[in-house]
Amino acid sequence: MPAHTAYPAAVRIVEVGPRDGLQNEAAALSIEEKVEFIERLAASGLQVVEVGAFVNPSRVPQMADTAEVFARVRRRAGTRYTALVPNMRGLERAMAAGADEVAVFAAASETFSLRNINQGIAESLDNYASVCRAALDARVPVRAYLSTAFGCPYEGPIEPGRVAVLCEQLRELGVFEVAVSDTIGVAHPGQVARVLDEVVPRIGVQVVALHFHDTRGMALANVLAALGYGVSCFDSSAGGLGGCPFAPGASGNLATEDLVYMLDGLGITTNVRLGALLEASAVIATRVDHELPSRVYQASRRTLRFQPEITDAERG
Amino acid sequence: MPAHTAYPAAVRIVEVGPRDGLQNEAAALSIEEKVEFIERLAASGLQVVEVGAFVNPSRVPQMADTAEVFARVRRRAGTRYTALVPNMRGLERAMAAGADEVAVFAAASETFSLRNINQGIAESLDNYASVCRAALDARVPVRAYLSTAFGCPYEGPIEPGRVAVLCEQLRELGVFEVAVSDTIGVAHPGQVARVLDEVVPRIGVQVVALHFHDTRGMALANVLAALGYGVSCFDSSAGGLGGCPFAPGASGNLATEDLVYMLDGLGITTNVRLGALLEASAVIATRVDHELPSRVYQASRRTLRFQPEITDAERG
Repeated sequence: MPAHTAYPAAVRIVEVGPRDGLQNEAAALSIEEKVEFIERLAASGLQVVEVGAFVNPSRVPQMADTAEVFARVRRRAGTRYTALVPNMRGLERAMAAGADEVAVFAAASETFSLRNINQGIAESLDNYASVCRAALDARVPVRAYLSTAFGCPYEGPIEPGRVAVLCEQLRELGVFEVAVSDTIGVAHPGQVARVLDEVVPRIGVQVVALHFHDTRGMALANVLAALGYGVSCFDSSAGGLGGCPFAPGASGNLATEDLVYMLDGLGITTNVRLGALLEASAVIATRVDHELPSRVYQASRRTLRFQPEITDAERG
Repeated sequence: MPAHTAYPAAVRIVEVGPRDGLQNEAAALSIEEKVEFIERLAASGLQVVEVGAFVNPSRVPQMADTAEVFARVRRRAGTRYTALVPNMRGLERAMAAGADEVAVFAAASETFSLRNINQGIAESLDNYASVCRAALDARVPVRAYLSTAFGCPYEGPIEPGRVAVLCEQLRELGVFEVAVSDTIGVAHPGQVARVLDEVVPRIGVQVVALHFHDTRGMALANVLAALGYGVSCFDSSAGGLGGCPFAPGASGNLATEDLVYMLDGLGITTNVRLGALLEASAVIATRVDHELPSRVYQASRRTLRFQPEITDAERG
């Protein structure tokens, strides 16, 4: 039985579709297509859009054009455009591209860390300490992802106390937020409660973001559980982009549409206009080679006699 | 912000796949296939399986063989085998078939009631009063569905106070439980809270069941919200069967696998063995002409290096 506090009045959504979504899609998009997608996402009211990653292009070819995408996107006031950076070189490229903030990515599993970034956890934190120092000197805020925080494909379950210690270590590097991430989509609301019971007392709820993949359909229920702790930042991708290219139909990140539909229904402010967001997804749907997994997107594409609208009375 | 009480220690799942699921599938199953499906569902530990419906076969041809299915199913101790009945004739057929309990179906929307059962709400309650009296005289428990309780395809939103009054009227007929049903899958957790705020004080939480369709991906989050009110009975269908045959990919009932995965993670007892349930779905998947929408089922079918297991420690 989780602690239960008041739901937050507003939630900040970090749209990761152009990065975490597209880097896991088999289809490669052109620079123009990415720019249009990002501009439509920002136009829907999203406050944070992760544009891409300054990583090794031979390992993640989908992100090789991130600098060009940054250069071409017409920026909208009210939206922050961010990028993933693995090291000092990535930070320099991100700052040259004019990223409003950057994100580093650590792992809660030693094995996953070694396999994903070729560094153990301790070594990666040393590396990120330098990145954070340089970024903060340049007044560029740094976010941290903590991947495999709910389970690892190699090590299995991860101890929540260990997740909390790593969150604290990342916080000590100067990151403003830790996105505690369910990389493989195994988390359920009971586990969310156990992780937040450890993490929130350590770093404070305002520093916690949650990043879910919807592999087992738990993502929205996990968000609801986290809202009960007062967590007010969630990552999601438009349309639920990001299914593994080797598993057709595999679902990717929590879909932004589904998140917005639920938050609208709870009367929690996101500033996102669902209709505009659905249009952004409709454009990207023509570029990827599978149906978008977002249930709200799918429902919007069918001919329904009843299109629900959240009325002011319902919000009350 | 909903009321929040202790989660129930155990949840009763009403498996509606053979009825609500199959009646909405384009593919017609043979009697043998239905019997195997039902026997596998019961073998997984499900306590209640809705076998079929004694309705007009010209309107719902998929249910025309319900009596034969009842006759052939080898019954398992610990499982109750139930049937939908629209009237006295249906009740008589259900009792002759040996149904352990029956269910009547009213609607919260006048227009839906007229279109679905060709009776207004008041007329349908008069009809069900006779059915309930006869059933209870024969010691056959009666459940009630209240459809379109969260929204109607013709009337739009339904006022929660109206839902509560109808629940009370059904309760007064002698039903032991009212399955408050989101027929078209528009409910979100905020609406669940508003409906339960009205319904629970009227009839008591032990009389409330909830029946969600996962059309917009909200079903599990809705369950989680309802657990916070102490609701301990939920309807679901194996594999998420029941997508509308005219909308390929449309999602049907909340999937039993997804529900069990979440409840297992919360340490809430269901008595259902997920592995056996997945086997039941795997059999039915070969009979319907589309991928089963259950996310947990889909994840189980992929080659995953990490198959999470809910450990005793995690249940704690």
